[in-house]
Amino acid sequence: MTTSHSLATAPSERLGTGTQRLSLNRWTFRTTPLQEFLDATTAQGIGAVGLWRQDVAEVGLDALRRRVDDAGLRVSTLCRGGFLTASAEADRAAALEDNRRAIDETAALGAPSLVLVVGGVDQADKDIVGARSRVTEAVATLAPYAAERGVTLSIEPLHPMFAADRAVVSTIDQALDIAEASGSPAVGVVVDTYHVWWDPYLERAIQRAAATDRLFSYQVCDWNLPLAAEPLHSRGYMGDGFIDFPSITRMIKDAGYTGDIEVEIFNEDVWATPAAESARIIAERYAQLVLPHA
Amino acid sequence: MTTSHSLATAPSERLGTGTQRLSLNRWTFRTTPLQEFLDATTAQGIGAVGLWRQDVAEVGLDALRRRVDDAGLRVSTLCRGGFLTASAEADRAAALEDNRRAIDETAALGAPSLVLVVGGVDQADKDIVGARSRVTEAVATLAPYAAERGVTLSIEPLHPMFAADRAVVSTIDQALDIAEASGSPAVGVVVDTYHVWWDPYLERAIQRAAATDRLFSYQVCDWNLPLAAEPLHSRGYMGDGFIDFPSITRMIKDAGYTGDIEVEIFNEDVWATPAAESARIIAERYAQLVLPHA
Repeated sequence: MTTSHSLATAPSERLGTGTQRLSLNRWTFRTTPLQEFLDATTAQGIGAVGLWRQDVAEVGLDALRRRVDDAGLRVSTLCRGGFLTASAEADRAAALEDNRRAIDETAALGAPSLVLVVGGVDQADKDIVGARSRVTEAVATLAPYAAERGVTLSIEPLHPMFAADRAVVSTIDQALDIAEASGSPAVGVVVDTYHVWWDPYLERAIQRAAATDRLFSYQVCDWNLPLAAEPLHSRGYMGDGFIDFPSITRMIKDAGYTGDIEVEIFNEDVWATPAAESARIIAERYAQLVLPHA
Repeated sequence: MTTSHSLATAPSERLGTGTQRLSLNRWTFRTTPLQEFLDATTAQGIGAVGLWRQDVAEVGLDALRRRVDDAGLRVSTLCRGGFLTASAEADRAAALEDNRRAIDETAALGAPSLVLVVGGVDQADKDIVGARSRVTEAVATLAPYAAERGVTLSIEPLHPMFAADRAVVSTIDQALDIAEASGSPAVGVVVDTYHVWWDPYLERAIQRAAATDRLFSYQVCDWNLPLAAEPLHSRGYMGDGFIDFPSITRMIKDAGYTGDIEVEIFNEDVWATPAAESARIIAERYAQLVLPHA
């Protein structure tokens, strides 16, 4: 990592507009080699990428940062920290330590925020309420560490379909409760359309997130049916499913959000598509369904 | 139908206690002939059944009522009305008319409540907000018709996994908003653990339902993983999945609910099990996980 990258870069200096505001999440291209992914991104005039810790592990932190810089791209988010629901003391300590490393990586990549997928329910005790308490406590513990490094923690409410095995945080409001309980301005929420589009109180929750300065990331992909055999892979290109992107994007805009708009699609068909073509489709759908309302 | 069945039977006269309070939903035994289903129910000392309109269509309304009476069983609910999200005027009129027939059938069966699955989103317009408005309007239109016949309408929030294709009502609070907007005491909610167990505001919502006299039905079955190829069929026997039945049942009890507790399981393995055995398992799990807390 070069010393030319200030961690204190203000968010306003980091913003893109138009297609530069679009960010491609690495997992949308998980089967694509890193350089091909970066090339496909810049070829569309897209300004940022969302990276995963797997990329850090494979390429190395400094080399990864250098390659993203060389491509002229920003890093919108790092995926992912979290998994904070374990009840055994040793497991909790290990999870906190792993999250501190993830925060360090986020800072080193110059990404403003680490995405937290908080973890699921232990089928042995089925105690979802207890699991949530442990998340609240762990997030509050991690918040100062993140703040000191100029990084925010974006709690990701996952679709309730994943409440048992992946995330006991299922709504924006619930994520905001946890963020507020942390007492830190470094904790907020990522709004991913796939996970929250069904929420009857969506607009109110988005307004609350923005009003409390906790709306840290907006991510878009569609809800496709039928669900894939692995439900996690039912995400689709914007426009292929049931989500009303113009309406939700207007809620985000009206709330005052001006940050990156990230596209994270887990889908076997997308992974089987050449990266350049997939990036082209995403840029096109973004221009049609999202950008005019953002 | 005999004239000995008063539609004005007060709810308190209809209540069972212990295993008599348990109700088996017909769809848990959809592959079982009607009489075998009724026999399996009474053999376990179970007091009620939840019926479906398909039973009415197959057996005839009077004959169905007679056979349930002859078995000494109550009818806890009729499934199902709803599907009120269509936007074309002719479709909306047809849906209202069909729901009036379902209300008539509910009354004729002596069941206190008709369960409403409200319908999904039209992929052509993707307008979930508009679909919800049409539900609110239609429910308010149907409420007086139901009230005149001594029947309540139980809106069923379905798991958000089904928001696109089956029900744009996803939470208890949202169902209560619609119930209150109807201006009628005949509209309320069914709390089905499978659909709402993940809700971070579950206890508050149950208390609200009871405090407004709109908690009409409590249904139990488990959230199994992995999801079945047809996600609708991922419901399991209590105890097989991730749901904390003692805790949720105590919320229901503490809110003052004393009505039937219905078991509705859609599951290929359950359907492949002999009805007598399946009813035995359900009664056993109910006695272990639900009844002590109810």
